[in-house]
Amino acid sequence: MTANLQMSRRIRRTPFTSCVEKLGISGFTVVNHTLLPKAFSYSVEDDFFHLRAAVQVWDVGCQRQVEIEGPDALRLVQIMTPRNLENAKIGQCMYLPLTNDEGKIINDPILLRLNTDKFWLSIADSDILLWARGLAIGMKLKVSVKEPDVSPLAVQGPSSQEVMVEVFGEGIKELGFFQFGFFKFNNTEQVVARSGYSSQNGYEIYLNNSSLGPELWDSIWNAGEKYNIRPGAPNLIDRIEAGLISFGNDMTNKNTPLECGLGKYCSLNSGTKFLGKEDLLKEKSIGSKSQMRGIVFGGKSQSACTEPWPVLKGDVNIGQITSGIFNPNLRVNTGIALIEKGYWELGQRVGVVIGPDDIREGYVCFLPFTAPENNEIIRRI
Amino acid sequence: MTANLQMSRRIRRTPFTSCVEKLGISGFTVVNHTLLPKAFSYSVEDDFFHLRAAVQVWDVGCQRQVEIEGPDALRLVQIMTPRNLENAKIGQCMYLPLTNDEGKIINDPILLRLNTDKFWLSIADSDILLWARGLAIGMKLKVSVKEPDVSPLAVQGPSSQEVMVEVFGEGIKELGFFQFGFFKFNNTEQVVARSGYSSQNGYEIYLNNSSLGPELWDSIWNAGEKYNIRPGAPNLIDRIEAGLISFGNDMTNKNTPLECGLGKYCSLNSGTKFLGKEDLLKEKSIGSKSQMRGIVFGGKSQSACTEPWPVLKGDVNIGQITSGIFNPNLRVNTGIALIEKGYWELGQRVGVVIGPDDIREGYVCFLPFTAPENNEIIRRI
Repeated sequence: MTANLQMSRRIRRTPFTSCVEKLGISGFTVVNHTLLPKAFSYSVEDDFFHLRAAVQVWDVGCQRQVEIEGPDALRLVQIMTPRNLENAKIGQCMYLPLTNDEGKIINDPILLRLNTDKFWLSIADSDILLWARGLAIGMKLKVSVKEPDVSPLAVQGPSSQEVMVEVFGEGIKELGFFQFGFFKFNNTEQVVARSGYSSQNGYEIYLNNSSLGPELWDSIWNAGEKYNIRPGAPNLIDRIEAGLISFGNDMTNKNTPLECGLGKYCSLNSGTKFLGKEDLLKEKSIGSKSQMRGIVFGGKSQSACTEPWPVLKGDVNIGQITSGIFNPNLRVNTGIALIEKGYWELGQRVGVVIGPDDIREGYVCFLPFTAPENNEIIRRI
Repeated sequence: MTANLQMSRRIRRTPFTSCVEKLGISGFTVVNHTLLPKAFSYSVEDDFFHLRAAVQVWDVGCQRQVEIEGPDALRLVQIMTPRNLENAKIGQCMYLPLTNDEGKIINDPILLRLNTDKFWLSIADSDILLWARGLAIGMKLKVSVKEPDVSPLAVQGPSSQEVMVEVFGEGIKELGFFQFGFFKFNNTEQVVARSGYSSQNGYEIYLNNSSLGPELWDSIWNAGEKYNIRPGAPNLIDRIEAGLISFGNDMTNKNTPLECGLGKYCSLNSGTKFLGKEDLLKEKSIGSKSQMRGIVFGGKSQSACTEPWPVLKGDVNIGQITSGIFNPNLRVNTGIALIEKGYWELGQRVGVVIGPDDIREGYVCFLPFTAPENNEIIRRI
């Protein structure tokens, strides 16, 4: 089922929207009340191979920043996440699950500590601006919480470093994975991070001045032409293969970080104080009800999952695939699913319900799909 | 510019989505991370005339409920809105601007007081669930804040009462405008309100059980067939004519309720305590910078505004039209705009910038457009 997206001011444009329109955008989604380009003239498969061979520029301006600044900024951010921020460094990107007072996930941003008392949360699809500000007001914290004029642009793929060096200079080479620095662009200073929602090397430029959007886009584009640059988007095949889970798709505010394989970001044994800690400690002691897993399954090459596919063991529903598509690299259909206790072991045989008369045979895998333990399982399909 | 909306689980379906798909939905938008059907096979004009002549059923399941319950529930809701809730009655719907600590609008829900300590906020497009819960946690209030399984379905148009009586019984006739009651449907009890986002008589059923969605839709549909029922959506021509402003379109978190014609919902002189009161008192004493107005303008019949149209006085930008379209009833182009001080008087002549070579002559009006004072102005076009 496809339908047009009806445009209005409420669905915000980014500084780069006019650029993707010129390049023949054919499909959008909406994240944080903002357009996220998802499809151009190529197929998802074609884009997948291109992403792994060349370089792409992605309008991810929908990754809005929640800026938290002031003497209580660190305290507020720490309350919002199970991850211990004691050693958070300026210049380091940190992936954070955010939990509510019941230990349920309400977002999973990247944290950028800009200075001692100033943070950006580069958020997934929920209004953390309202959450953080509500907490700050209620707790009478000394912070300001706002959405600055900052719109990320991603440059992803094996040739991304060459392109970035041409635009921002040799300093780009010194950025380690998940580090950020300050770089000059047209007499402005911009935050550039080595990060992005793909399995490939890549960068994100946190453009802090909307009016420079087309100029930045064109600079990247011009530098990228000799590397066969194309416009792109977070690629479903790539992110599933890499086990990059998506808030709203693979996990919602009904799930906990422990269920979603994010236990390594939960500092439960230290003195760290955060919302939902008691519930997570309890879950840890009694065990989780579900776990995030990969599912490989057979049958014809499956197009993208737009509604969850139930996963069965016999007649029993044991979970659902929430992101799924055929992977032309692994030559199997792949999906990400929360699987109930008792069924999440590697190699567990399952049925995947694509439609009423279309149930596929499949197996439980680890994430990412490229984990060596999966090889034997994938060969069974 | 049109593009497909790319579907995924993150863009939530409603209990009625399968029903609108069967009826040939052609355009969606996204509100509260949820699909809102906007277009079927008819034009906006055709839908406008049909809405005023017959009856339509609208999937407005995206109007999510924030349920606030507990001994501190009234206190929390009152903190969130400038409207005095001292006399809020069970069975009464109340339109509420919600303001943040700077007096800026962050949503404009309908409040339903279900009992002394239990409220629903039927929200526009922002995560008030997170806002209310953040405040409650920070203030240590004795309330639960959650999103229940409640999805409104609207029945709008002059024949809506006949249709609703067939489905819910004669008791429907006793509902006054902006009142709600509890009605039986298939052995369940449902909240039904006389309300809706149109200028016509209408009702909203707050379905509290998703699995009954298709059954409820079909019951309305079957009762409506002899009244020429059609699927519909909030109609842009109708809502602009009626001056029904839209959060995210006509007002954002950069605007105050006093600017947006919502002063009558702001209890500034009483002892009511709410967030942003000081800022609103200050604005009231020094005067607002802008005011919400209608604009009528000439030239060819204009299709819907998808990006704001600047409004000029000479060469000076004095505001922008944020919702606009040709009104075939009034036979003029109509728009809603925030207009700067000094230019918001009735009959003020302005230019409306549709495109670089397309500036139209227009005039400032009152909202709604049907206000008698506007007649002479509209005739000038």
